[in-house]
Amino acid sequence: MPVDSRATLSTVAHRAGVSRQTVSNAMNSPEMLRPETLARVQQAIAELGYRPSRAAKALRTGAARAIGLALPPKAETGAGGVGDRFLHAVATAARNRGYRILLLAASSDDDELDQYEEVLAAREIESVLLTGTHHGDPRTAWLSREGVSFVTFGRPWGAQEEGTTHAWVDVDGAAGTDVAVTHLAALGHTRIGFVGWPAGSGVGDDRRAGWLRAVHRLRLAPAEQPSAWVARTDNDVRDARSAAATLIAERSATAVVCVSDTVALGALRAASEHPHTVAVAGFDDTPVAAAVGLTSLAQPLEVAAESAVALLLDERPAGTTPPPTHILLDPDLQVRESTGSRVATA
Amino acid sequence: MPVDSRATLSTVAHRAGVSRQTVSNAMNSPEMLRPETLARVQQAIAELGYRPSRAAKALRTGAARAIGLALPPKAETGAGGVGDRFLHAVATAARNRGYRILLLAASSDDDELDQYEEVLAAREIESVLLTGTHHGDPRTAWLSREGVSFVTFGRPWGAQEEGTTHAWVDVDGAAGTDVAVTHLAALGHTRIGFVGWPAGSGVGDDRRAGWLRAVHRLRLAPAEQPSAWVARTDNDVRDARSAAATLIAERSATAVVCVSDTVALGALRAASEHPHTVAVAGFDDTPVAAAVGLTSLAQPLEVAAESAVALLLDERPAGTTPPPTHILLDPDLQVRESTGSRVATA
Repeated sequence: MPVDSRATLSTVAHRAGVSRQTVSNAMNSPEMLRPETLARVQQAIAELGYRPSRAAKALRTGAARAIGLALPPKAETGAGGVGDRFLHAVATAARNRGYRILLLAASSDDDELDQYEEVLAAREIESVLLTGTHHGDPRTAWLSREGVSFVTFGRPWGAQEEGTTHAWVDVDGAAGTDVAVTHLAALGHTRIGFVGWPAGSGVGDDRRAGWLRAVHRLRLAPAEQPSAWVARTDNDVRDARSAAATLIAERSATAVVCVSDTVALGALRAASEHPHTVAVAGFDDTPVAAAVGLTSLAQPLEVAAESAVALLLDERPAGTTPPPTHILLDPDLQVRESTGSRVATA
Repeated sequence: MPVDSRATLSTVAHRAGVSRQTVSNAMNSPEMLRPETLARVQQAIAELGYRPSRAAKALRTGAARAIGLALPPKAETGAGGVGDRFLHAVATAARNRGYRILLLAASSDDDELDQYEEVLAAREIESVLLTGTHHGDPRTAWLSREGVSFVTFGRPWGAQEEGTTHAWVDVDGAAGTDVAVTHLAALGHTRIGFVGWPAGSGVGDDRRAGWLRAVHRLRLAPAEQPSAWVARTDNDVRDARSAAATLIAERSATAVVCVSDTVALGALRAASEHPHTVAVAGFDDTPVAAAVGLTSLAQPLEVAAESAVALLLDERPAGTTPPPTHILLDPDLQVRESTGSRVATA
């Protein structure tokens, strides 16, 4: 059987009929496997001529001065997504240090890890800037285990409890929604709801937590029974419109803070159908927010990019693992027409 | 004086107090320069230890299997801009051929050329995928002169008349606006205006040309005096709103085709303030179009990316100049509420 020089953990897993994790265990903790499974994996490794990247790492001294960055399969607006602005800032920060960005396109987390494995083994990159961290993310554990120099844009969301600590940069969503509520309260609003994504998203839950913190601190109407003031919706204008409409009608909310600009667009539509003025705030300050006059929270993407690259490249020998430094940046509230006026006194 | 290993055409030009073009002439056509200018440039070249990339090219046989792609300084929505979707598709198309994308961040056209020069000389890339072509673009001439293997996403816009021919892929803006007018005419509209950018933009003029072609072919009201039916605006919602409002009021237009979704958002606002229903169509099918129910033209970015990479890498020895093939792709009209109903009969 010909040896496939591009064999990866996934191709071995597929051939052996097991998961990637099982292949990884076969190499690192073979005692965890039943002997027949171990034999099957070892046979697949031999047949495919798979060379685990740990072994390849010894050769990595001459690695290119490049950082790997993978685009997620679908552009995720907000939610740790990677836009033009972030990419430009990352490439500029890297260039200022004599480094390049190697752009990869991932179709899944596993596919992304396969690609890192390839380019690390081929010494095409020296480190990784990981984006779009999420609950149950297998990528940080893999990068840690392989001893790869990496930083994430996005917190570990739960992985820390499982013992994974690494350097990261993130934007403080809770601080953002707290500022939005505080701004609305200063305009006279007390009945301020939250339109969020389904529970379980790290980014979404964080943004909801800031709203909750502020309504408690400011003793606003929702503080008594907060869950009754939260509507859940997918990140879709139509769904968000009906979720917001229900919240506004049932609670007589005079303002809603939304988890994203897309959700806020739906809320704006619901508000426009309501007899009273309803203030709306979004998150991420996408071009659409400026276009429709939506108050929104702007992520400091240039600072985030510069910080992430600095963690990767500054003050340490190239290619070594950065210390688990955590940088949490505050977003800025961009006030526009959608929260433009004081609440009418009843 | 120490030799700067990162000397580029621009640093030499700066040191000699001349333009990049003059430095280029000093090396390629010294007879074009006055002797004292030539001497000054030659001294700067010697002092900086500048090695022109043509000489470096002889060493380029071992070039990395990578394509250089530079992000423009500001995300240009539409207008040949480079978004997440295009980048993901380019990286995927490259990967399917065993190639990577080296992402660069340019602050200007000259800066972009300096970076190509660097990474070509260092053999970090083998070819270039150029985006955001525009009138007076110095980049295609430079790449041609240097014998670099490159393809552009975007037509040469005028450079062809100056003798530059190269391989390109583009989206047919005129075909798109023609389809939009045809769609509106089928709904009963005869008074269809165009809200465009200032004249002189390749992309903007092309999109206007399709509107003009369709109103002539369908013998619509603007055919008699088309210039009276065109409003010009920057790519800004507020400016576009007043431009569209004037056009609608002065011409009693029942529909407007817009050069971009941003301009269409302004037109939608103008339309909402008008007593009669005014249909609006945009261009680029950005997320905002789906969010606000705007009919818009979608660029086939995945096909464009695949085509561009195929021109660069397929059916020729790696790193050789592709033949000047031109691929023009049709956008698709995404019909939504903003053009959703037939015109009311008077």
